[in-house]
Amino acid sequence: MSPIIGVIGGGQLARMMVPPAIELGLDIRVLAEAGAVSAAIAVTAVGNYRELETVLAFARTVDVVTFDHEHVPQSILRALVDAGVAVHPSPDALQFAQDKLAMRARLSELGLPVPDWAAVASLAELDAFIAAHGGRAVVKTPHGGYDGKGVRVVSTGFEVADWFNDDDPLLVEELVEFRRELSQVLARRPSGEITLWPVVESIQRDGVCAEVIAPAPGSAGRLADVAADIATSIAENLGVTGVLAVELFETTDDRLLVNELAMRPHNSGHWSIDGSTTSQFEQHLRAVLDLPLGATGCREPWSVMVNVFGGSVDPKRFAAALADQPEVKLHFYGKEPRPGRKVGHVTAGGDDLDDVVFRARAAAAFFED
Amino acid sequence: MSPIIGVIGGGQLARMMVPPAIELGLDIRVLAEAGAVSAAIAVTAVGNYRELETVLAFARTVDVVTFDHEHVPQSILRALVDAGVAVHPSPDALQFAQDKLAMRARLSELGLPVPDWAAVASLAELDAFIAAHGGRAVVKTPHGGYDGKGVRVVSTGFEVADWFNDDDPLLVEELVEFRRELSQVLARRPSGEITLWPVVESIQRDGVCAEVIAPAPGSAGRLADVAADIATSIAENLGVTGVLAVELFETTDDRLLVNELAMRPHNSGHWSIDGSTTSQFEQHLRAVLDLPLGATGCREPWSVMVNVFGGSVDPKRFAAALADQPEVKLHFYGKEPRPGRKVGHVTAGGDDLDDVVFRARAAAAFFED
Repeated sequence: MSPIIGVIGGGQLARMMVPPAIELGLDIRVLAEAGAVSAAIAVTAVGNYRELETVLAFARTVDVVTFDHEHVPQSILRALVDAGVAVHPSPDALQFAQDKLAMRARLSELGLPVPDWAAVASLAELDAFIAAHGGRAVVKTPHGGYDGKGVRVVSTGFEVADWFNDDDPLLVEELVEFRRELSQVLARRPSGEITLWPVVESIQRDGVCAEVIAPAPGSAGRLADVAADIATSIAENLGVTGVLAVELFETTDDRLLVNELAMRPHNSGHWSIDGSTTSQFEQHLRAVLDLPLGATGCREPWSVMVNVFGGSVDPKRFAAALADQPEVKLHFYGKEPRPGRKVGHVTAGGDDLDDVVFRARAAAAFFED
Repeated sequence: MSPIIGVIGGGQLARMMVPPAIELGLDIRVLAEAGAVSAAIAVTAVGNYRELETVLAFARTVDVVTFDHEHVPQSILRALVDAGVAVHPSPDALQFAQDKLAMRARLSELGLPVPDWAAVASLAELDAFIAAHGGRAVVKTPHGGYDGKGVRVVSTGFEVADWFNDDDPLLVEELVEFRRELSQVLARRPSGEITLWPVVESIQRDGVCAEVIAPAPGSAGRLADVAADIATSIAENLGVTGVLAVELFETTDDRLLVNELAMRPHNSGHWSIDGSTTSQFEQHLRAVLDLPLGATGCREPWSVMVNVFGGSVDPKRFAAALADQPEVKLHFYGKEPRPGRKVGHVTAGGDDLDDVVFRARAAAAFFED
């Protein structure tokens, strides 16, 4: 009998776990909120991940529970652990991906480099922070934000007055002057083994990841070492299991600051499906099963991933992209295209970065409106 | 709506079509003889592929029908075509993979290099062929043989007397003195485009493929060209669509002779999952949908695939193999291990062939009895 992995959530991250599960001979099952989801092929249970009965019934059919997203409430996660279910990442770790204030507090306590920050419970506190940080700051809701949602750059507290709607404080951070954004992705097993992919550059548009270059240009040496040290320290001190992505700012004065954490496969690691000996999805499965991790070397000197925001994925465009770029790997998530919705990605690889960027963008451009 | 591929047969070849279907955003459905098969995750219909009603009902749920195996009777295939179903490869092509006598006759007619052969309907005819070919010959049942089944090397017709059980003739072939066995795998679209992977060396044990080295050592140049020409000629003249594998003998006097044909992904192409930009499984899907084919370059100078015959795939051995060979890719087919049953394969890649062979064999050895 092969081990059975249970994934809560049926989005594209769950979908992309299915191919390596099939290849390794593992059984994978998904609890989704509906049948017609990205990971439909592996859905064995449909229900609400906020209902303990639903999640517990699903968990009893699998050997380990892991996640497509970070939205499962702590109360549910802890009840699973109490019921003897193996949950990776654990609730203790996952809380730091679910609560940005807890994350900032913990990283500061560990002495890890983060932007200046504060928990603010009132407009007055927020305005005081803004005034002390050059007149502008970034305000974040501690819970539930992603892809630019729940994040605003403001000059006065008034601009987020609508977010002060209960007793929960908000997170405010200095507006970091950064040269670019990087991401360090790794995987860690419960027994402690860690493997890292090279630090990558993540190019954002409108607060959403648009392109990733692996490795980050010019990162060999000190930059790669610092990024690896920061992410390793976070994984070990927070007890992360499975894949961890640490989003970083590279500041104009050559420091790395931790921006966000994700405790699951991450968009900045999608290039690894085609570009690394072991993809982040295969590694996540190995890690949550506490199996030995795979090699994370690059298959080519450069890999470039470009997201596809649909738009349209009609068969003509699909065929045209395949014909035009026979070396580029196309990935689609089985999602109905809607303007601005992330429906897939493409990855190119090769020796010459300009050429690789050109080919990846050319393939993705076939699906633009 | 993405196109829907229907696969008849639920074995490991159907299973290995599922990951590229997921990656490309295609829908894949399998008609299997039972629910608990290798390709279980994609099974949408269970039934007998020899029953027209069953196959037709399945075909009506998909856009194109293709195959995990070559056993679907011609009568069924032709009824599908008559009903307007897109079938790839077509019955006209597939007959040459189903009937070795028809294949030998057609290849001879095309002037392609094959061993001396004859259709023999009696012991006397068979003994005459043996006597004319040095006292030994290979006898094959024209239908249904694979992996060494239905093949016997004999010195007298008496050794296959049990096969003369009706009016069907047997195929007899000269016993070729060969240096090694090669395989040329390609894919062809209905509209004519063909892509080839490099010719590979296939190492057999007990009539079954045990290891594959890609490319075949020393094949660059004339050997690769001749193999490519033979396979291309077969694909074009027989109208093959999808993946075609041409098994070849490299004779001791430096000729290439066609041994067998397979019109589906083939064991000698499994290395391409990890070792080529486009795997034979992805290419098969693209080809049967008449989509542009992908690049077939090698990701590494050498790839070596070793089959796993189970034996045992218990979690301890699995973990030990992963730990020992972090760069080797393990593939298991979700089959219950039985002595001698092919339950998976492993693929290693790299610059140094001896090292690559060593690592692939080392990983596979963890699963030997």
